Amino acid sequence: MRQAGRYLAEYRKIRAEVGSFLDLCYSPEHATEVTLQPIRRFGFDAAILFSDILVVPHGLGQEVRFVEGEGPKLPPIRGTSDMKNLSLTAMQSTSGPLEPVYEAVGRIREALPAETALIGFAGAPWTVAAYMVEGGTSRDFHAIKSWALSDPAGFGALMDLLVEATAEHLARQVAAGADAVQIFDSHAGVLPDGAFEKWIIEPTARIVAALRDRHPDVPIIGFPRGAGLRYPDYASETGVTAVGLDSVVPVTWARDALQNRLPVQGNLDPVYLLAGGSKMLAAADRILDALGDGPLIFNLGHGVIKETPPDHVADLIQHIRARST
Amino acid sequence: MRQAGRYLAEYRKIRAEVGSFLDLCYSPEHATEVTLQPIRRFGFDAAILFSDILVVPHGLGQEVRFVEGEGPKLPPIRGTSDMKNLSLTAMQSTSGPLEPVYEAVGRIREALPAETALIGFAGAPWTVAAYMVEGGTSRDFHAIKSWALSDPAGFGALMDLLVEATAEHLARQVAAGADAVQIFDSHAGVLPDGAFEKWIIEPTARIVAALRDRHPDVPIIGFPRGAGLRYPDYASETGVTAVGLDSVVPVTWARDALQNRLPVQGNLDPVYLLAGGSKMLAAADRILDALGDGPLIFNLGHGVIKETPPDHVADLIQHIRARST
Repeated sequence: MRQAGRYLAEYRKIRAEVGSFLDLCYSPEHATEVTLQPIRRFGFDAAILFSDILVVPHGLGQEVRFVEGEGPKLPPIRGTSDMKNLSLTAMQSTSGPLEPVYEAVGRIREALPAETALIGFAGAPWTVAAYMVEGGTSRDFHAIKSWALSDPAGFGALMDLLVEATAEHLARQVAAGADAVQIFDSHAGVLPDGAFEKWIIEPTARIVAALRDRHPDVPIIGFPRGAGLRYPDYASETGVTAVGLDSVVPVTWARDALQNRLPVQGNLDPVYLLAGGSKMLAAADRILDALGDGPLIFNLGHGVIKETPPDHVADLIQHIRARST
Repeated sequence: MRQAGRYLAEYRKIRAEVGSFLDLCYSPEHATEVTLQPIRRFGFDAAILFSDILVVPHGLGQEVRFVEGEGPKLPPIRGTSDMKNLSLTAMQSTSGPLEPVYEAVGRIREALPAETALIGFAGAPWTVAAYMVEGGTSRDFHAIKSWALSDPAGFGALMDLLVEATAEHLARQVAAGADAVQIFDSHAGVLPDGAFEKWIIEPTARIVAALRDRHPDVPIIGFPRGAGLRYPDYASETGVTAVGLDSVVPVTWARDALQNRLPVQGNLDPVYLLAGGSKMLAAADRILDALGDGPLIFNLGHGVIKETPPDHVADLIQHIRARST
């Protein structure tokens, strides 16, 4: 999950100086600084690059704006004729629009302690396409689902482009110094039975294969949020190294159905982190009790809520470290 | 799922005449008319009462408004001190605020053909509480989850009130002529591991038990939308007669994990109904192939999208009927 953010005063200060959210993503100096802030404060085992999944559509040529309080806005792509301004070429050049992101990765890797891993990331094609087709956030995903379910060939052209762009974006982050990558499929939970294979599992498997061609040993964490009953298929068919669990996944089920096959990551509900105190620690214990004896990356199941007191994060870290020793 | 609605011209006509959405719910004459409209047009095997899950908080004394294009708005209840204006007493009297709803049930039952079942309904306590606490629709449910996870005793007082009110509301519908009832838990999929038992399964089980005390034989369909991996626990621990499946539930899994224990209802994605044609029929066949040999109530996995051409509904019905003979 994103570690930097508005719950940290030092982040809000940089954000106010830089101005827009995308300017922050594209400033190697400032993206480096905000990536390092939570590491300095909390000493996490790994840092995650400060960036956004929408740099990929932006790098492909789609306009992307972030409107304060409303989220991202994009001119929606509703058919193959809307795709004519999108192109991989710029992203593939070494002076392309996403070069500042890779420069930030290099700077962060240099600045981090050797024992702290750096995680790069990208959105999965379905989730990124959801923003591209809906034109922003969505409650019901009618536009993208209508297109995908009624015209799989046309929608498949957009997904093919995103598979290539995402593999490229991840490979470049690894080349620049990322030790592992994560693929966020935040909207994996909205597809009907039958379409999950085609639009979640298959594109992710292609990205994993393409990335392994270029970087055979890089660990890849797949996070199909909301996949529910489809988690085991996702874990066994995409080829990911580890799987991220959202907060509704029952931990004892995850131990028996997933963790015997691959490492799992997760899955504290960020609402517990907002609440803090004994309720938070009990919820963390529940995860550690079920999953602590197998390969586990302790994490949240979703991003930090912006009203979260940073002290709660410190309390949680201390509790987990005390239990691990 | 709601059968009447804006996809039907005859509904839009009545709606324009009556004015507000809640006025329509509280007019026995007009609620009867719009409930019967889809039955006249399509001849479904069952009718579902035209009403709304928010009549319960309204009946308890919370202000409820529907703002065109924005959905419901309620003054949010964020703690037990905000609950002092809520009361069951009015709802329990035979001249209470929800009397027009029960009058509509009686009129509809009288007007329907004998072979057409009438389904009454209510929202489940968690889902209704989500509107009461968030003050309307929500993307992340932070307010209700914070309250429920950090102060289970205080939040439990609201849930206890809703359990009683919901059982009362369903029992009154059955007494007025409903042949079966459905409990909609549309937001069942947002609770972290551990809280699902407490806020989804337990309240539903209490409602089922209370309703069976008064009407031992009434079929009760539970619909915990988004329950995913928790569907089997819900099906076996709440005591519901049948379980509604949302569209992401894999049908072959549902056959093996649920349908061997109880009837299932669902689960065509309404986006297929919007698309129509061969893609829609293939998706219906997928459901019928997997679930058609066991107890199945064919249905959508969510409500009809308002842009859906009514002809698609007619095509779907014809296809299903042709396969069933």
